[in-house]
Amino acid sequence: MSVVTVEVGLGDRAYDILIGPGLIARGGELIQQRLPKARAAIVTDENVAAAHLEPLVASLSAAGNVPAVIKLPAGEKTKSFDSLQTVVDDIIAARLERGDAVIALGGGVIGDLTGFAAGIVRRGMNFVQMPTSLLAQVDSSVGGKTGINSPRGKNLIGVFHQPKLVLADTAALDTLPLREFRAGYAEVAKYGLIDRPDFFAWLETNWREVFSGGAARIEAIAQSCRAKADVVARDEFETGDRALLNLGHTFGHALEAATAYDGSRLVHGEGVAIGMALAHRFSARLNMASPDDAARVEAHLRDVGLPWRMADIPGALPDAEALFGYITQDKKVSRGALTFILTRGIGQSFIARDVPASEVISFLKENHAG
Amino acid sequence: MSVVTVEVGLGDRAYDILIGPGLIARGGELIQQRLPKARAAIVTDENVAAAHLEPLVASLSAAGNVPAVIKLPAGEKTKSFDSLQTVVDDIIAARLERGDAVIALGGGVIGDLTGFAAGIVRRGMNFVQMPTSLLAQVDSSVGGKTGINSPRGKNLIGVFHQPKLVLADTAALDTLPLREFRAGYAEVAKYGLIDRPDFFAWLETNWREVFSGGAARIEAIAQSCRAKADVVARDEFETGDRALLNLGHTFGHALEAATAYDGSRLVHGEGVAIGMALAHRFSARLNMASPDDAARVEAHLRDVGLPWRMADIPGALPDAEALFGYITQDKKVSRGALTFILTRGIGQSFIARDVPASEVISFLKENHAG
Repeated sequence: MSVVTVEVGLGDRAYDILIGPGLIARGGELIQQRLPKARAAIVTDENVAAAHLEPLVASLSAAGNVPAVIKLPAGEKTKSFDSLQTVVDDIIAARLERGDAVIALGGGVIGDLTGFAAGIVRRGMNFVQMPTSLLAQVDSSVGGKTGINSPRGKNLIGVFHQPKLVLADTAALDTLPLREFRAGYAEVAKYGLIDRPDFFAWLETNWREVFSGGAARIEAIAQSCRAKADVVARDEFETGDRALLNLGHTFGHALEAATAYDGSRLVHGEGVAIGMALAHRFSARLNMASPDDAARVEAHLRDVGLPWRMADIPGALPDAEALFGYITQDKKVSRGALTFILTRGIGQSFIARDVPASEVISFLKENHAG
Repeated sequence: MSVVTVEVGLGDRAYDILIGPGLIARGGELIQQRLPKARAAIVTDENVAAAHLEPLVASLSAAGNVPAVIKLPAGEKTKSFDSLQTVVDDIIAARLERGDAVIALGGGVIGDLTGFAAGIVRRGMNFVQMPTSLLAQVDSSVGGKTGINSPRGKNLIGVFHQPKLVLADTAALDTLPLREFRAGYAEVAKYGLIDRPDFFAWLETNWREVFSGGAARIEAIAQSCRAKADVVARDEFETGDRALLNLGHTFGHALEAATAYDGSRLVHGEGVAIGMALAHRFSARLNMASPDDAARVEAHLRDVGLPWRMADIPGALPDAEALFGYITQDKKVSRGALTFILTRGIGQSFIARDVPASEVISFLKENHAG
């Protein structure tokens, strides 16, 4: 199977995303092509290290670049100030310079944390992403957002720091639990729903092949990266259009918070899946989109095995007012109105700047599981 | 006395530096002009707060913007990961958004730390500098370098984050100890020595008026900011010319490290003063510049009361080899050669990329105090 290259066009910060099987084991050679003479440090977590560290270290060493290895515990708790300090100190202790390369080998947590560390050591070092989850390959590895969590909210602390190269090894996804692959797939479908109706239709037909691997999977990841790269190139620092990428995330984040970020009940991509279905249903309720489109989104999420309504979340949820409270924690409510990503139909999403709070609360009441 | 404005031309990151007396007490109005509706947090240290916090809080409050205040201990130890976390947490706790303003009220330590915090909360908030030391007004407040220290070296962790506005209140300098004012003056003289021979000549004539305050002081600060702004506009991210700003800093940093950053023996600006004199003397020894120019630099530093040779540092210094060790800690030595800022004469400095280590060591031996 051949490797697909997606170029992220950001002027002098432009970079390539390579997508295909076996890229981790070719890391040494591919990094050397772009960053000759750069020494390297790999940041990873214990789970990913067990599956993928050895071939990467071997490949870098074969290219004459024996890397420092910084290994952290797996899980969301690692996106903390403490871990950031550990990574920063270890990179400095390894005596890496600005022109050397910090490699993130892992999922979104490792990518976000490592990118942040690479962005602040010596005011910005070379950064290479090797995302090993579907979510990281199609979302967090494109666009340069890095960060950690604050006790007061997720991703509140970070920088924009673009990688020099992204290697998305599609074979690494074979080691993912099905539930995690599915959760990442929610973000793939999101790109169709934002502004690529043809891609969404293609997914409705081809999703089984995307799940089973092979060329369709590479194609879906490449389309997703292209879609995100287009938005990011238009609005690198999120002052406008980039907000479209939050489709499904307002409801989704509220549900994640309402379930106390308990991954046994709801993981991020599942929250986004339910959030996207709700955003379409809410748009229909506001007479902005056809209820048929909302039904089509719900059907596709159900087909692939993703949750699509609040009732799909195991355990009890807080009531509608409390859910609304989680939404407003996330954003400013000015004069009783909120900003939401809504839609006029499949692939026609837009930024709605004055959604009345009262409509949101009524909608949550109608769609509440309880 | 009128206020002078220096524009830092960085495209969509351009900003103004206002220089003149009484600007702190006008902070509320001046910030509101540029950032209408922005709420504010002030970061300062206990010493500066005693002298300057009240008028600033009053001015902001009068403009309808009651600020959050984050007060830290004074001193270099505050440039730490712990303080960074405190400032970041406090900004988030004050519920400030990206469009709100984080104000640094203080010297270089507060400016560097606060700029870093403003650069990473929500991936970059508005930042306003109100430098209260001469060093901060002419150096750290121009150019967007922010950062903290690592146990392994100074300023190793940080970001480039440009302020939206700098208010350099020249009356605030009247509260500085003379020794601190002098140390800041070393960086003023540096701009003449880098590439403005007329400015250096003007300083030789007018330095007494710069020290006593008034129009000459404002003029010297404005010239310094213009000089630094020119270099920064050419090379925002320090990939080339910006290195010229390190004139005097290679020797200076080594001497600071050799005296264990003990401010009772040597403060940063004094290290730079000795470093600039040594850079000129070393250039003369390498037959690149006239010894007369080195003598002229030494004479001016002596006139204003700054140390200009290693013998001026109280207490014993490590021997020449050990000093050379401190220099190489700071930079890469590739194949026995180092990069230095040298000069062909007053105002004719340049980046020398392959200075033989052996020449540096011989020079240090000849000029050693012991």
